[in-house]
Amino acid sequence: MTGNGARPGGRDDGGDASVDEARARSAVRVGVDIGGTKTDAVAVDGGGAVLGELRVPTGFGAEAVVATTVEAVSSLASQLRVEPREFSSLGVGIPGSVDSGSGRVAHAVNLGLEGLDLGAELTSRLGVDARVENDVNAAALGVYSRLSSADRTISSMAYLNLGTGLAAGLVLGGRLWRGSRGNAGEIGHIPIDPTGPLCPCGQRGCLETLASGSAVSRQWPTDHPRPVQELFEAASAGDAAAEAVWDRLLGDVASAVRLLVLTVDVDRVVIGGGISSLGDPLLGGVRDTLDGWAAASPFLASLGLRERVELVPAGFPAAAVGAALVGAATGDAP
Amino acid sequence: MTGNGARPGGRDDGGDASVDEARARSAVRVGVDIGGTKTDAVAVDGGGAVLGELRVPTGFGAEAVVATTVEAVSSLASQLRVEPREFSSLGVGIPGSVDSGSGRVAHAVNLGLEGLDLGAELTSRLGVDARVENDVNAAALGVYSRLSSADRTISSMAYLNLGTGLAAGLVLGGRLWRGSRGNAGEIGHIPIDPTGPLCPCGQRGCLETLASGSAVSRQWPTDHPRPVQELFEAASAGDAAAEAVWDRLLGDVASAVRLLVLTVDVDRVVIGGGISSLGDPLLGGVRDTLDGWAAASPFLASLGLRERVELVPAGFPAAAVGAALVGAATGDAP
Repeated sequence: MTGNGARPGGRDDGGDASVDEARARSAVRVGVDIGGTKTDAVAVDGGGAVLGELRVPTGFGAEAVVATTVEAVSSLASQLRVEPREFSSLGVGIPGSVDSGSGRVAHAVNLGLEGLDLGAELTSRLGVDARVENDVNAAALGVYSRLSSADRTISSMAYLNLGTGLAAGLVLGGRLWRGSRGNAGEIGHIPIDPTGPLCPCGQRGCLETLASGSAVSRQWPTDHPRPVQELFEAASAGDAAAEAVWDRLLGDVASAVRLLVLTVDVDRVVIGGGISSLGDPLLGGVRDTLDGWAAASPFLASLGLRERVELVPAGFPAAAVGAALVGAATGDAP
Repeated sequence: MTGNGARPGGRDDGGDASVDEARARSAVRVGVDIGGTKTDAVAVDGGGAVLGELRVPTGFGAEAVVATTVEAVSSLASQLRVEPREFSSLGVGIPGSVDSGSGRVAHAVNLGLEGLDLGAELTSRLGVDARVENDVNAAALGVYSRLSSADRTISSMAYLNLGTGLAAGLVLGGRLWRGSRGNAGEIGHIPIDPTGPLCPCGQRGCLETLASGSAVSRQWPTDHPRPVQELFEAASAGDAAAEAVWDRLLGDVASAVRLLVLTVDVDRVVIGGGISSLGDPLLGGVRDTLDGWAAASPFLASLGLRERVELVPAGFPAAAVGAALVGAATGDAP
């Protein structure tokens, strides 16, 4: 969504253009999603509409990650013909353990980071107030903003991220719920099968060992760039081993949905992360699994699980958009 | 806590006594906890202190339950030398499916109720605005008010009720979180063992089949009036069968605590309900189990589960006190 509409305040309607421009600029918020291999940046206006977006490769290590972020924000500013310091806020989503109050990243293993004051560093280099959030929480905010603007009756949502790991972000009463120590949504380490696989966390049968990219890799080893796609195709072609793994995967993803609804009773559970890129076959399979459970349990049927689950829209930069909203949505109480 | 301090506005400090009395009366809130066999009523002042309390047997069926509640509130009013209509609000906790917005009870099986407009009925008979809440949610509010007034750093809590069934009430950011359809905290029907017992809900291995009074009854059938007490004593005396049931019970209660912390990351998980009346042996056993898990999992150790779990103080009428606070704490956003 760049192009003619990309320059904030660029309209010429006979009003005081400089004042309009200043006003519009002051409302432009930038969000950056620092991923393991790529970094997405978006600029959104006061109403949440995307004014510009771009993608750069992510560097490895503290200095490279900071440089990547500075480059992304600077490029986005150039694209919008402003200076970075003219953005009203900067939010960053990062896959790691974050103190969202201070902007400090305790560790982000896949990025080679430890003990980095990322918020302060970016504020200093870019001249704009920077906040830092865990990437799953950022994505939850991004998806929620989209869902709730399309349907005003929605006020709570869980974002279920099925990447290499499994975790959720919770939006309750319209606000991000981080929990008392920032661990809300760490459902990947809830054991649901006492005889399940050992988890690197030291427990056995954690949800993450059953319904994540790593769970698929263990059960369906392949060099295919999209293992879940290959698994689904093999299962569809009648490969019995693939069918067994696929059915288990659907059941375990459905278990995560059920756990979220029974615990926090959110309006929607929205699935994202690498596994979700499979699209309709995943969503349809999970919904069918939930329907099967509902047929056997009037209690589950009364919860309407099927209607609550959906996928992140393909191509929607949820974590970057959510990061842009972090500044407006912070606060410990939902 | 009845006696000299029980009469609101009864002080004589030279001010305008009638105005003071009216003011004090207007701040007296009444809470009623309608249990399966007994009904507790309390009156609390604006600061949450208990001004009076009493207990009456609960009748069976719609008319008897309404009559019980009217009797309890009227007796409490007499005790405090006021009329029921002089109370500022009335809150009722009831074990059933409640629409807290309308005050309608869809069903409360153990009380023989179905489709009763309890809130409207009580408002009409007593002349005071009545609200109705699920008893577990009411207890959560009651426990939270006590915890948070003793420690202002606490802003979130789960109340884990281990009665015949198992359910939780959530207070997040200082407010009751009911969820989008009033089902928040229904963790008793989350399966955690695919080979576990069949649950009346139609699923297998639900938490409720493992860590509740009914779970104990199934595994340790007895005519003892306090089965968990007998189970604990037999286990302590070296009965191998009792030891196995007792250890499993501790593990399953600890699983419920872990699930709550990993999902909503509350400051405290407070255990109440019939099983909690065992007291220290239960709390100590659950804490020891959590310690054992922490020793095997640095991740779990980092969560500090042991420090977060405690029991409802013995004799504290949590649900009645919480019901009294319902009027002030309602709202869908936590």
